[in-house]
Amino acid sequence: MAAPGKGARTDRPGSTRRQFLLGGAVAGVGAAAAIGLDLALDSPSTAPASAPLNGDETVPFFGAHQAGVDTDAQAHAVLVALDLRDDTDRDGLRRMMGILTDDAARLTQGVAALADSEPELAVSPARLTVTFGFGPGLVDRARRTAPAWLKPLPAFGIDRLRPEFSGGDLLLQIAADDPLTVAHAARMMLKDARGFAAVRWTQRGFRRAHGTVKPGTTMRNLFGQVDGTTNPAPGTEEFARVVWSEDGWMAGGTSAVVRRIHMDLDKWDRLDRSGRDQSVGRYMSNGAPLTSSPDGAAAEFDEPDLDATTAVGFPVIPTFSHLRRARSEDTAEKIFRRAYNYDDSPTGSEVSDSGLIFVSFQADVDRQFTPIQRRLDELDLLNEWTTPVGSAVFAIPPGCAEGGFIGDTLLT
Amino acid sequence: MAAPGKGARTDRPGSTRRQFLLGGAVAGVGAAAAIGLDLALDSPSTAPASAPLNGDETVPFFGAHQAGVDTDAQAHAVLVALDLRDDTDRDGLRRMMGILTDDAARLTQGVAALADSEPELAVSPARLTVTFGFGPGLVDRARRTAPAWLKPLPAFGIDRLRPEFSGGDLLLQIAADDPLTVAHAARMMLKDARGFAAVRWTQRGFRRAHGTVKPGTTMRNLFGQVDGTTNPAPGTEEFARVVWSEDGWMAGGTSAVVRRIHMDLDKWDRLDRSGRDQSVGRYMSNGAPLTSSPDGAAAEFDEPDLDATTAVGFPVIPTFSHLRRARSEDTAEKIFRRAYNYDDSPTGSEVSDSGLIFVSFQADVDRQFTPIQRRLDELDLLNEWTTPVGSAVFAIPPGCAEGGFIGDTLLT
Repeated sequence: MAAPGKGARTDRPGSTRRQFLLGGAVAGVGAAAAIGLDLALDSPSTAPASAPLNGDETVPFFGAHQAGVDTDAQAHAVLVALDLRDDTDRDGLRRMMGILTDDAARLTQGVAALADSEPELAVSPARLTVTFGFGPGLVDRARRTAPAWLKPLPAFGIDRLRPEFSGGDLLLQIAADDPLTVAHAARMMLKDARGFAAVRWTQRGFRRAHGTVKPGTTMRNLFGQVDGTTNPAPGTEEFARVVWSEDGWMAGGTSAVVRRIHMDLDKWDRLDRSGRDQSVGRYMSNGAPLTSSPDGAAAEFDEPDLDATTAVGFPVIPTFSHLRRARSEDTAEKIFRRAYNYDDSPTGSEVSDSGLIFVSFQADVDRQFTPIQRRLDELDLLNEWTTPVGSAVFAIPPGCAEGGFIGDTLLT
Repeated sequence: MAAPGKGARTDRPGSTRRQFLLGGAVAGVGAAAAIGLDLALDSPSTAPASAPLNGDETVPFFGAHQAGVDTDAQAHAVLVALDLRDDTDRDGLRRMMGILTDDAARLTQGVAALADSEPELAVSPARLTVTFGFGPGLVDRARRTAPAWLKPLPAFGIDRLRPEFSGGDLLLQIAADDPLTVAHAARMMLKDARGFAAVRWTQRGFRRAHGTVKPGTTMRNLFGQVDGTTNPAPGTEEFARVVWSEDGWMAGGTSAVVRRIHMDLDKWDRLDRSGRDQSVGRYMSNGAPLTSSPDGAAAEFDEPDLDATTAVGFPVIPTFSHLRRARSEDTAEKIFRRAYNYDDSPTGSEVSDSGLIFVSFQADVDRQFTPIQRRLDELDLLNEWTTPVGSAVFAIPPGCAEGGFIGDTLLT
């Protein structure tokens, strides 16, 4: 196992993939993958050292945790949920996860998969990660006990769920800073999964491109809202406590809640600036919590002053605001959000079909996610403009060591 | 007019938008836009000069030609075709194009549009360009004579055209290196167009992200094929001859052919490496024309040897290959390709729905594009794996000067 090196990203300026692979930080990268690199056609590792390419950056695959959870979110993601075929039994699951693990271990290191028919599309990993999730149906098929939280979320009053964006036995979260890399990896892995499972739904999302804004900038969603300010920081003790499970075959794993949230941008347009600030409880301009000082005097990471009141005695941060409703006094009710925007082709008289692929990771859905969502369901002014149209819960099993496969704690 | 500066890109290393705007290369950038920059919230021009951000890069809007034709293709594009509302007359067209030109002039320079409800999403232009195209219906509505080539292409035997990807009165080609920038610009402009026209179709495409591979690398499509090797180079005399029209209200403009080409990746997978090389007439590995020497001895930009034969006397570059069929002895039959990949959500048992948004620019569709397409329709082995499912032709009017608007040569 290569836990210590696992969280390290390799996108430091000046590093090339070759330098990384030959350097000291190789923990967790398979030797086979490293050798395979030199066989890859058009390898960008031949680029001059003076021009490091983001396409060459890799995130280690093997380790205590799967990549794609604590990995600084890449620009592009496709989330695919599959349904197992009727004849895929425990043995079939083992074979499927062996093959898909091998694909992911190679592709994430910029090496073509076995029998990859377009190997030239594999040579720019661009921080590719593949994260596997298991739905209740898969654990059942494995004839093992699922964590208590591995089930559909309770029905919320605001939900208008559509089956084509809900549920699923197997999740693939495939993310990279390059959309061609994502497309190739997704196709390659879905071809290899085809004998065992069929695509149930696909959701494509994006954030700012690599290099558009300064690293570490909190994302904005299509409402223009700064989204994710209160996230625990990967690498911290708090992050570990919030995210990683310690239970049985899930130890080192986590859970993923994937909710497709349609955002009614036309209706949002009818809300003025101040109304938007009040709904969110933060300034649209910079994401700072509302204060009694003028807009701009506060900063994004300021602690909200929940006791502050206006001159006429109303709370500065309204009781109906998203900030206040999402917040809990209970420190256990904390999640790690890793969302993507979506912007699909509109139908009818709309000019856009947009929203958020909400993805959160937490050790225990029931204890951490559901209480927050219950409060938001009861009252959150943002509900006026947002509608959950898809929902799914997956167990994200731990990472694996070289020679192992994702899910081996469940399937062996 | 700012013709000389028009083709210049500003993505040279070390430049920031502010440096660019204050520097000598400001030709074509409106003073209003430059001033507006300092009003933009969260302006990335405050980033330290040591960390130039690709998000800050701009492509000038005003000039003899519209941007987005000779602009080095950005990573993301959305092409939207609109149908004019019945009551949009010549006067309405003038108003519509005035408003949309103003939006594009601002947004491409990183400045929020007038009444932009998410101004924070406008501050990272990331080489945003907006290119307008006029379909036959729009020129008709303007009560002017269309160029003879401004009509649907002749029916080709390989076509399986679907109305939802064909035709249209107005084209917006919105492209940038950042997908959030594209989404915001598209929504902003479609809101402003809504009173005059309704969305007919939307196509989203991508290439390699900015920074994934070395600048100037020819794109690969989802077949893995190097795509666009024989393009004339922007800025050359050949490019000007191939692309820019000199006729009447179209002088300084061009034409766009937009064809949605579905690529059957499952069927392509059944073709071996050598079969792929033969179909294209180029090596998949590096895009070089086939030679009698071993794969790898040739380079992408080598001149094809059409007379070379194999040991048994067959042409090295097969007669049915795409390279040979697309090629013409007639130097007039030349186009400039600027395509995007698409990868949409599959339906049924497919694991992908992928293809190419083929976009070509040429001064005269009938003289340059149609003869090539006729030859490919008659015989091109690639037809086995590709199906045109959408087709549209647009007149791309010339650029405009500050104070003018796109289409002013047609509408005033």
